[in-house]
Amino acid sequence: MRGFRERADVAAVQAWLGEHPVPHGVEVVPLGAASGRRLAAPLVADRPVPGFERAAMDGWAVAGAATFGASPGDPRPFDVIGMARPGHPFEGRVGPGQAVRIMTGAPLPDGADAVLRAEDGDEQQGRLQAHAPTTPRRHVGGVGEDIQPGDHVVPTDRPLRPQDLGVAASLGHDVLAVLRRPRVALCVTGDEVLPVGRMPEGAYIVDANGPMLAALVARDGGEVVDHAYVPDDPQQLTEALRADVDLLLVTGGSSVGTEDHAPRLLAEHGNLVFHGMAMRPAAPTGLGTLGRVLVALLPGNPVSCLAAYDLLLARWLRRSAALPGPWPYRAEEGVLRERIASALGRLDYVRVRIEGEEVEPLATRGASLLSTTTRADGFVLVPPASEGHAAGTPVTVWRY
Amino acid sequence: MRGFRERADVAAVQAWLGEHPVPHGVEVVPLGAASGRRLAAPLVADRPVPGFERAAMDGWAVAGAATFGASPGDPRPFDVIGMARPGHPFEGRVGPGQAVRIMTGAPLPDGADAVLRAEDGDEQQGRLQAHAPTTPRRHVGGVGEDIQPGDHVVPTDRPLRPQDLGVAASLGHDVLAVLRRPRVALCVTGDEVLPVGRMPEGAYIVDANGPMLAALVARDGGEVVDHAYVPDDPQQLTEALRADVDLLLVTGGSSVGTEDHAPRLLAEHGNLVFHGMAMRPAAPTGLGTLGRVLVALLPGNPVSCLAAYDLLLARWLRRSAALPGPWPYRAEEGVLRERIASALGRLDYVRVRIEGEEVEPLATRGASLLSTTTRADGFVLVPPASEGHAAGTPVTVWRY
Repeated sequence: MRGFRERADVAAVQAWLGEHPVPHGVEVVPLGAASGRRLAAPLVADRPVPGFERAAMDGWAVAGAATFGASPGDPRPFDVIGMARPGHPFEGRVGPGQAVRIMTGAPLPDGADAVLRAEDGDEQQGRLQAHAPTTPRRHVGGVGEDIQPGDHVVPTDRPLRPQDLGVAASLGHDVLAVLRRPRVALCVTGDEVLPVGRMPEGAYIVDANGPMLAALVARDGGEVVDHAYVPDDPQQLTEALRADVDLLLVTGGSSVGTEDHAPRLLAEHGNLVFHGMAMRPAAPTGLGTLGRVLVALLPGNPVSCLAAYDLLLARWLRRSAALPGPWPYRAEEGVLRERIASALGRLDYVRVRIEGEEVEPLATRGASLLSTTTRADGFVLVPPASEGHAAGTPVTVWRY
Repeated sequence: MRGFRERADVAAVQAWLGEHPVPHGVEVVPLGAASGRRLAAPLVADRPVPGFERAAMDGWAVAGAATFGASPGDPRPFDVIGMARPGHPFEGRVGPGQAVRIMTGAPLPDGADAVLRAEDGDEQQGRLQAHAPTTPRRHVGGVGEDIQPGDHVVPTDRPLRPQDLGVAASLGHDVLAVLRRPRVALCVTGDEVLPVGRMPEGAYIVDANGPMLAALVARDGGEVVDHAYVPDDPQQLTEALRADVDLLLVTGGSSVGTEDHAPRLLAEHGNLVFHGMAMRPAAPTGLGTLGRVLVALLPGNPVSCLAAYDLLLARWLRRSAALPGPWPYRAEEGVLRERIASALGRLDYVRVRIEGEEVEPLATRGASLLSTTTRADGFVLVPPASEGHAAGTPVTVWRY
């Protein structure tokens, strides 16, 4: 019960997580479910887009050479023999002295090699007078102008964007093979914890960590496949540790007290790599593996749980999904209104409010007040090498 | 067919959209579906959290006054009469000279008013020697320490955070009343357009805008309730314009050509407020209303469609959901490697690649190449008051 003999440097734990493998399975999802997911292999075009030559302007399809020298004072005449609209090609052939009225996006008819823009001609009773020249290929979108067969059009090293889905659709795809999301199980421990949906009563509290972690995991590209409540019982906890997932998040009982079974059981059945972090809050955090499962032992205290998740697990999940950055929070610069105290060697996670340029620390005393994280605008990190920040210090706020 | 007589300033269109009402309906969703949604009313606590006095440290529950003066050389003795664990209260009363072993989170027994920390005492065979003092309320979490009845714990002016769901659960909620999402219908027009899942062939292209817009709308907090394909037929298009939604996105046929029916029909049956935007790409964009429905006429060209959506509709949808900023893109500073040309009075949306500090414009010539938006890292905006940026100019890149 006397605390941790030594505490792991948060940067060292992050580095270890940076080496821990991410899942590599593949699943096939409909285009409509693929945004934000990560392709299993680069999307390589198997055909050109567009697949046909088409008008890039409204006007007339002509043989460009026949317009050379045309001017308002010396127009070139054409017989307009038909019309080409998008989805309605002109089926015949454009011969010498002939033109076909054409709209943007329509296929260029045989025999034509250019578009004369609408503003460069006048059509009356089937006769076109071209009073400016056009040139072969002018205002024509060529086959494969957007995409050539063999082009790597979407890479694997970033989440799919909305426009990637458009490109995939234009190549004929309606499903995509993406990396499966890391499967995550939540194991909420504590005899005092009631499941979500119960009313708090007597000596019991309702699980705040489960719904919070579920939303955090989804935000970072993971998939929560189980949300179990496990009493403070070594036997049941041992069973819960054997989850068939990529990441197991255990909350509660993560410290060094007699009822803190999880660290001992993980050390016994698996590998407790870190226990005790040089951070505040969330010092009583453990991390290790059981078989190929990454196991995080998070404090039952919700603010500690949030801090430990955001500082450690978020980045592992986001790496799997190729989501940018260690978390989704935007950095904002401000100036401290009040001093933040810290200890050398310890990372501090301090909830703050932002008012204009001013940054006001909230509740530095305790870890337990979850409402500070709903009232706060974000948090400031005080690195281990610092003993704190004086009032007036410029700081980076990570906005929730 | 001769282009727009005048073009609306994008800032003016954005200002108009800033005034257009957002939907105000309410729906009730499970906690697990509420992250990122917006509360219909502030969440006000109807009870304290925690609901009972509890130990904030492991140790012994005592009457604090009985430890006054205790020191290693002058310890105070107590009989340990029981144990309190989280979820397992000590049911009796702590009398004078008595203590109860207690763990963090356990309810403080009657008769005790303080916790003596584990490191400040020694227990052997039921006898505790306190060798440091504690004081009444010390290491005790009071009723309502986190949340008091009547506290406004979650506001309505921002999306719900993961930790908000934790707070809601701890108050006994498993559902929340949130603003319903704007309902959006997609109407993809064009006789040349095949639905998603078909292979491109002949003079036909596959719809790229539908899947792209669906992902964009979901990203910005809207809900796509319909995705229809409508041929270039005024009668069918008129019917499609009468969608019972909050926002109708029509793609294709948005310019001034003879087959561009949408603007004329919207003007005839509703209100075409803007047609033709001072921007490149996406000049042929229209915006208006039909009854209470916001109707956007977007270019069929996918890059134009993306630019018009991001510059105009994204912010309206995000305002509904109280999502931050006009879009989710992060700003990044860089230096132009090559010149970007623009015209006074026109907003340019230029796709760029970022290499280190250098920003390289891609394909400034045409709007039509959707693959530029999958190859690009983001875009640069050249404001109407600028004729472009010289090479070496510092610019802000919005990262896709």
